Amino acid sequence: MGELPFEAELAELHRRLRAHRDGSVATYIPALAASPADAFGLAVVTVDGHSYTVGDARVPFTIQSVSKPFVYGMALDDIGVEQVMRCVGVEPTGDAFNSITVDEASGRPFNPMVNAGAIVTTNLLRGDTVSEREHRLLSGLAAFAGRSLVVDEDVRASEQATGDRNRAIAYLMRSSGMLHEEVDQALDAYFRQCSVLVDAHDLAMMGATLANHGVNPVTHERAIAAAHVPRVLSVMSTCGMYDYAGEWLYQVGLPAKSGVSGGVLAVLPGQLAVASYSPRLDARGNSTRGIAACVELARRFRLHVFDPYASGPAPVRRSYDLSAVRSKRWRTDAETDVLRSKGAQAVVVEVQGPLQFAPAEALSRWVAAHSRDVSHLLLDMRRVTSFDQGAADLLTATVAKVTGNGATVAACDLPGDPWASELWDALSAAGASVQVTLDDALEQCEDELLSHGEQPQDDDATELHAHDLLRDLPAGAIAWIDREAPVQEFPKGATVFRAGDPSDAIYLVVSGRVAVHLDRPDGTLRVATVGAGSAFGEMAAIDRMGRSSTIEAETDCACRVLELPMLDRLEQALPGTSSILYRNIARVLARRLRDANDEIRALQR
Amino acid sequence: MGELPFEAELAELHRRLRAHRDGSVATYIPALAASPADAFGLAVVTVDGHSYTVGDARVPFTIQSVSKPFVYGMALDDIGVEQVMRCVGVEPTGDAFNSITVDEASGRPFNPMVNAGAIVTTNLLRGDTVSEREHRLLSGLAAFAGRSLVVDEDVRASEQATGDRNRAIAYLMRSSGMLHEEVDQALDAYFRQCSVLVDAHDLAMMGATLANHGVNPVTHERAIAAAHVPRVLSVMSTCGMYDYAGEWLYQVGLPAKSGVSGGVLAVLPGQLAVASYSPRLDARGNSTRGIAACVELARRFRLHVFDPYASGPAPVRRSYDLSAVRSKRWRTDAETDVLRSKGAQAVVVEVQGPLQFAPAEALSRWVAAHSRDVSHLLLDMRRVTSFDQGAADLLTATVAKVTGNGATVAACDLPGDPWASELWDALSAAGASVQVTLDDALEQCEDELLSHGEQPQDDDATELHAHDLLRDLPAGAIAWIDREAPVQEFPKGATVFRAGDPSDAIYLVVSGRVAVHLDRPDGTLRVATVGAGSAFGEMAAIDRMGRSSTIEAETDCACRVLELPMLDRLEQALPGTSSILYRNIARVLARRLRDANDEIRALQR
Repeated sequence: MGELPFEAELAELHRRLRAHRDGSVATYIPALAASPADAFGLAVVTVDGHSYTVGDARVPFTIQSVSKPFVYGMALDDIGVEQVMRCVGVEPTGDAFNSITVDEASGRPFNPMVNAGAIVTTNLLRGDTVSEREHRLLSGLAAFAGRSLVVDEDVRASEQATGDRNRAIAYLMRSSGMLHEEVDQALDAYFRQCSVLVDAHDLAMMGATLANHGVNPVTHERAIAAAHVPRVLSVMSTCGMYDYAGEWLYQVGLPAKSGVSGGVLAVLPGQLAVASYSPRLDARGNSTRGIAACVELARRFRLHVFDPYASGPAPVRRSYDLSAVRSKRWRTDAETDVLRSKGAQAVVVEVQGPLQFAPAEALSRWVAAHSRDVSHLLLDMRRVTSFDQGAADLLTATVAKVTGNGATVAACDLPGDPWASELWDALSAAGASVQVTLDDALEQCEDELLSHGEQPQDDDATELHAHDLLRDLPAGAIAWIDREAPVQEFPKGATVFRAGDPSDAIYLVVSGRVAVHLDRPDGTLRVATVGAGSAFGEMAAIDRMGRSSTIEAETDCACRVLELPMLDRLEQALPGTSSILYRNIARVLARRLRDANDEIRALQR
Repeated sequence: MGELPFEAELAELHRRLRAHRDGSVATYIPALAASPADAFGLAVVTVDGHSYTVGDARVPFTIQSVSKPFVYGMALDDIGVEQVMRCVGVEPTGDAFNSITVDEASGRPFNPMVNAGAIVTTNLLRGDTVSEREHRLLSGLAAFAGRSLVVDEDVRASEQATGDRNRAIAYLMRSSGMLHEEVDQALDAYFRQCSVLVDAHDLAMMGATLANHGVNPVTHERAIAAAHVPRVLSVMSTCGMYDYAGEWLYQVGLPAKSGVSGGVLAVLPGQLAVASYSPRLDARGNSTRGIAACVELARRFRLHVFDPYASGPAPVRRSYDLSAVRSKRWRTDAETDVLRSKGAQAVVVEVQGPLQFAPAEALSRWVAAHSRDVSHLLLDMRRVTSFDQGAADLLTATVAKVTGNGATVAACDLPGDPWASELWDALSAAGASVQVTLDDALEQCEDELLSHGEQPQDDDATELHAHDLLRDLPAGAIAWIDREAPVQEFPKGATVFRAGDPSDAIYLVVSGRVAVHLDRPDGTLRVATVGAGSAFGEMAAIDRMGRSSTIEAETDCACRVLELPMLDRLEQALPGTSSILYRNIARVLARRLRDANDEIRALQR
């Protein structure tokens, strides 16, 4: 189906933000000053492993501080929460990333997102030797990214050469007993960590691994224990954006981490991660475009961890096609055969839950994957409980793609609440039928599959000998019925009989159609529509009990009425006729039963 | 069904924590020193409005700082985010609640959870006069609580008399231009706010209103706009527990607020709120038992906003009973009548999604509400994707209650993954059948409903005249069939015929039972079991096409075989017989069709 709606959204955002040239590239590490100032890449990876990328999303850069939450998670895995907490706190400081402060009461660095805490954390990783710990570092980050990673030696050397402030911090950590390594050795590991080469797509994949409770959504490799993921995300959310942390959570609402080389990563637990690469930084050291991209995506698609709509079930409750499930309209044998063979091109999707970003995005991919050979797409919307504007836009763009390819789309049983009327209008503008029940949409879809572009044959008189119930009868019997059975006309809306009435006749529909209603405690239920060529009331001939349903003319219609005494007379005149008639009734019932069982299996799937 | 499993959990937690007597009652407001030091109440309210309370959950106390997030939300509603942000920041300070500090750059108090920010926030509420603003304050808090609230005048007077530090803060706020009211007037409103009387249940209800995107879950009144809820929760999560905020989010993971009178409130967005009242405070001014209760509940039930399992669909996907949906075993007319009338006492519940606290708790209430008159409860577990230990304990306790009341419980189609085996064992220990398919459980349940305590009649021979297909036949015809139709025996596992074989005979099952299989692209599907008194292969008499299914003996069984030429001879010997036979086939098919349509309606609900 070509481009997914969210690809277009992301491309449009990228195009717009590319014009922003505020901020400047970090220079305190000389090697970073050579970064391409105007590079700009965006990536989004979902917890089911789908990647969206735009711009310079595959341009490599050094990970810098964005490594900190991942290494923190690895340390939790390696030595446990208690041991880590003994050496590094989790309180936000409101200070800059390179502040030289410790929690005076405990001697600990305040949190693992400031350099002091990060240097300590790196040196908590498992490994008896420097090279073991280096291996743990690189393979641990690689497990998040789902590919092996390397260190940029130039940047590492540059950090090493200009790292005096970090040296000061490391000595302070050693003096307060939080760091046991030699300072040079400890910093070497830390500088290596900061100099690992990634791209925006890698960062999004690493974030999606956190969003996916610690399991990389593509390789399915576990990077850290599920129990440690909320702890990593907590620290990101309170300390991830330095002194901007409070406002970040308030305005954007996503645990996030930025780095001095221009990377920004934001995570929506259980759903997705967004990453950006753009080296121009603001006064706080956060990438200006990266911040703007997160702010705009979060606002447009309501991505906020504290948004109570921010979660829900998978949007596709189930799907089936018209080869198994059909409208309540009874069809003749010939029509049923056509629908069985062509039904697979008409697909019904039950959509459920709140339609906000993640489900709408997943739904758009589902439709793209399943609508290639589809002539009719029916969205059963009765279980949709709410929608966001951004999500509705994705759905509308998805529908427009399908209608643009020439298929028919109906959005059925949309809730009538006021909130849904905007969605109705948008879907209607995209070419979908709205304000239609699923059963009506199914019936119309069947009519179109049957008509090959002609009008459905509803209102034509049907020859008696072609009638389902009169098949195989000798010509003499057909002539006898044609002569003896009266034609009765019913205007639209007329009641033919009611539930409880005596069962005294079989009705063969000649033109128009009737609806079969059941009276239920919770109201009247239309269970079938019977058109020309089919019959109703045939149970009269079988059990002679009262009518079990009420029949109303749905259009003006005409029926041949076979009263029961007439059938007895026919049998007397032409012995063997009733046996054929019962066999025909059994055949029709058997077909309907087979259809019903197919439908049950489709519904139970 | 008596006590819900989570009531028992909460009572046990309360009993255990009541023994803790650490900390002491706040004394800096003299009226608070008179609080009952050992009072202890716990309350949990869910977003669907269910309340759990234990201990002193209805003992009133003044709300104090727990009012701050609610008043902040009201201010966002009254004057908008931008105006509020101009006067109060959202950055955590790491300082104590009564710190006298402002953000030097902006002159704003750091956030609305410290007194400075709260005093400013209170005075941002809508209203031209003092009394208008007081009314807004009380009615706004009442909308969260779902009942009208009053001020404790003694506490208010005491705060007024001893509020010098707050006076200092208010003057500082005025000096930095953040407060425009007279200091006395501004503080009067603030002291009134702090002196509003609530109980632990009120706090939980107010929190549940935040969890429920701003709508009180019992009155259904909207207290604040949904868009402001994530902002309130963000501020609670970064600043709600004073200088303990970072560790709180890390360890407990719930936006929370404590008050000096002993209240603690924690919110899990989209799910529930927990509140505690216990006046003994720790050094930071947080209630010791309140903290302990939140920590333990969060740990036991994995209540953490960043836990990627923390959300999912409603646990009951749908439910139905055996009056409409039954096993694939075909029953005789008489059996079907019994099942139609008794089926309502056998209930099937489709459980879905990750079983963690909120869904397991909701499921336990659903079962309690629906299992009063139930003899069989079948849990269809095939859509359960994971479970937590705490949630599994709730489910197990629920099952044990149902089995304890004498009902039969089966946990059907439990996933075979290793994670499920613990759950199997626990449910089995609670008296449920496990390792059973839903269809087998349905069949066994039907057998039990039919047997009235006797053994099912499976293996008894059935008299020919009582056979569904031979009803109404004259005695002569029955005798003819008895004489002419051979009995054929099939050992268990034998194939009677295969799909595609010629249709040459109808089989009347006399003893034992056979299974009807369809060959599908995705494997063989058992679509029916046919027992004594029912027939298979009857379509042979109708369309004389090849067999559409394969029949295998499920037990040793015996059938009367009516070959088609024999039926022709019977009609010649006794004219009219075949007509009755076809009518009987039609009647059986009509009944199965009616059952199938009932099942479709139950499944589509």
